[in-house]
Amino acid sequence: MNPEEEKRATPCSSHANMLHHRVFVRNPHLDVMKDDVLYHFGLGTATHNLPAMFGDVKFVCVGGSPLRMKSFTEYIAAEICMEDPESEYPNICAGMDRYAMYKVGPVLSVSHGMGIPSMAIMLHELIKLLHHAHCEDVTILRIGTSGGLGLEPGTVVVTKKSMDATFLPKFEQVILGKTVERNTDLDQCLAEELLQCSKELDQFETVIGNTMCTLDFYEGQARLDGAFCFYTEKDKQDYLKKAHTAGICNIEMESTVFAAMCKLSGLRAAVVCVTLLDRLKGDQMNVSHEVFQSYQLRPQILVGNYIKKLLKAKAVAATVQQ
Amino acid sequence: MNPEEEKRATPCSSHANMLHHRVFVRNPHLDVMKDDVLYHFGLGTATHNLPAMFGDVKFVCVGGSPLRMKSFTEYIAAEICMEDPESEYPNICAGMDRYAMYKVGPVLSVSHGMGIPSMAIMLHELIKLLHHAHCEDVTILRIGTSGGLGLEPGTVVVTKKSMDATFLPKFEQVILGKTVERNTDLDQCLAEELLQCSKELDQFETVIGNTMCTLDFYEGQARLDGAFCFYTEKDKQDYLKKAHTAGICNIEMESTVFAAMCKLSGLRAAVVCVTLLDRLKGDQMNVSHEVFQSYQLRPQILVGNYIKKLLKAKAVAATVQQ
Repeated sequence: MNPEEEKRATPCSSHANMLHHRVFVRNPHLDVMKDDVLYHFGLGTATHNLPAMFGDVKFVCVGGSPLRMKSFTEYIAAEICMEDPESEYPNICAGMDRYAMYKVGPVLSVSHGMGIPSMAIMLHELIKLLHHAHCEDVTILRIGTSGGLGLEPGTVVVTKKSMDATFLPKFEQVILGKTVERNTDLDQCLAEELLQCSKELDQFETVIGNTMCTLDFYEGQARLDGAFCFYTEKDKQDYLKKAHTAGICNIEMESTVFAAMCKLSGLRAAVVCVTLLDRLKGDQMNVSHEVFQSYQLRPQILVGNYIKKLLKAKAVAATVQQ
Repeated sequence: MNPEEEKRATPCSSHANMLHHRVFVRNPHLDVMKDDVLYHFGLGTATHNLPAMFGDVKFVCVGGSPLRMKSFTEYIAAEICMEDPESEYPNICAGMDRYAMYKVGPVLSVSHGMGIPSMAIMLHELIKLLHHAHCEDVTILRIGTSGGLGLEPGTVVVTKKSMDATFLPKFEQVILGKTVERNTDLDQCLAEELLQCSKELDQFETVIGNTMCTLDFYEGQARLDGAFCFYTEKDKQDYLKKAHTAGICNIEMESTVFAAMCKLSGLRAAVVCVTLLDRLKGDQMNVSHEVFQSYQLRPQILVGNYIKKLLKAKAVAATVQQ
């Protein structure tokens, strides 16, 4: 890593101090490509004016479900007073049917589907998009759902370290048939700023803790209710208790690759997930639809308020400078 | 495996010989659960009459994209003369926004998103659904897209063996923090029947070959056009040529877990993917939208014709018996 990259990849960066940090790709082959097709987005440098479409993006919010990202866009538009009653917020990636993408002012919302591979494809193309669009000082936030460990359902967890299924803070990836290990550090200042924001909001419990990321929802998370289960209730409890002892507060399926890829590209990143149930007490999601919906909104409310706060501070700073 | 399970998991089973083979789960905990919530489908045993809704299913077709599965449903409805001009084929899983599911007569179509984890969640819930619905003699077919190796773009590959990124026919999964290896055998009779069906159709080239399944689309498939690339064009070519030498005809992202889980549940399974480009010649998908659409239809046409042929044979057999 050269010194400039080192600086960008710092694990703690206050938003106020960010100054013209470009999102960067780390691929010399891109320089010699005549044009670049972002296949799963249905966008490309030859077919779309990416700087004009995305150059002003400062916040990217990502989540698994396309509908959740659409409703987040409507929510954030109202929060930052950029609502357009005439507008339907069209899905920018509708042509390809793989991801949903919405934009309102400086906020881009993108769905990533479920699991590490789906997240990785989206991030490769998102990082290239932000690079081609010459974006600067971008913060990226995953707003998701998860299973909790020893927490009241509905608690929001801001991830400190993202860990794999053996409780280690790393992301392993097979490249050219060989396993490569990547660092999953997340921005600690950003996590603290989000926690502070939640305290000011005072609407629901938020904690900072480690998050475990698995490749499967059933056997991979020691559930007893999958189509297959070759272990006992005791085996399950032993595994989850070990995870809890390792400081793991919640379990989801995308955070390691998200942390690793954001770090490599110099993006200031956070993972904010609500816990839908306490996995030490059960496996099935059987809260009512209304409760489920209200829980699911919590990361959106927290991140929405954080963005609003930052944009307000920026507007005040601009007024003072004038 | 008990003798009955062994019989069901045979690597070669002619559809004509299938007789009351139940789809089976392998999880004793399910027997003592009062009800079962299929969370990502938005279905459950307490809220839905699964035998009434799905008991007649004989074919399940799965593919990554929700829109592709909808258009396949419309296509197959016309093919098997079960078209309903009044019907819109509602998405059975619309409530949850994770997968799309459509049914027409004995054919169920389900989207699975991108990547192994997304496929695994869908299959856990699909296998439980077929089990709760008491389905018998079910054939499951993945209709997808892929990158080819040394094949003309547009060639359809029916998978012989599904291999991992080190060219081995296995699926590795982490359960309770430990790596478990599973067999990825697919039904060889079914593959041959599909090849024969393609010959009769005579519309496009179809081959039987090995398929490599990776956890990433860019670095994981040795592409030079991701956000990150720390290897050379030569490294890429060396890796892909080694894969080609190992009999790998195409590369996609779901077949190992699909093969492993279908085998464990006794489902007769095949993977049918069209190749969109020759990866020995390039990385980017830059065929026109029309060509892309026509390629994407090929697995649907092949599988649609196969289902039609089998249903016709069954109808003739029923007439003879009467």
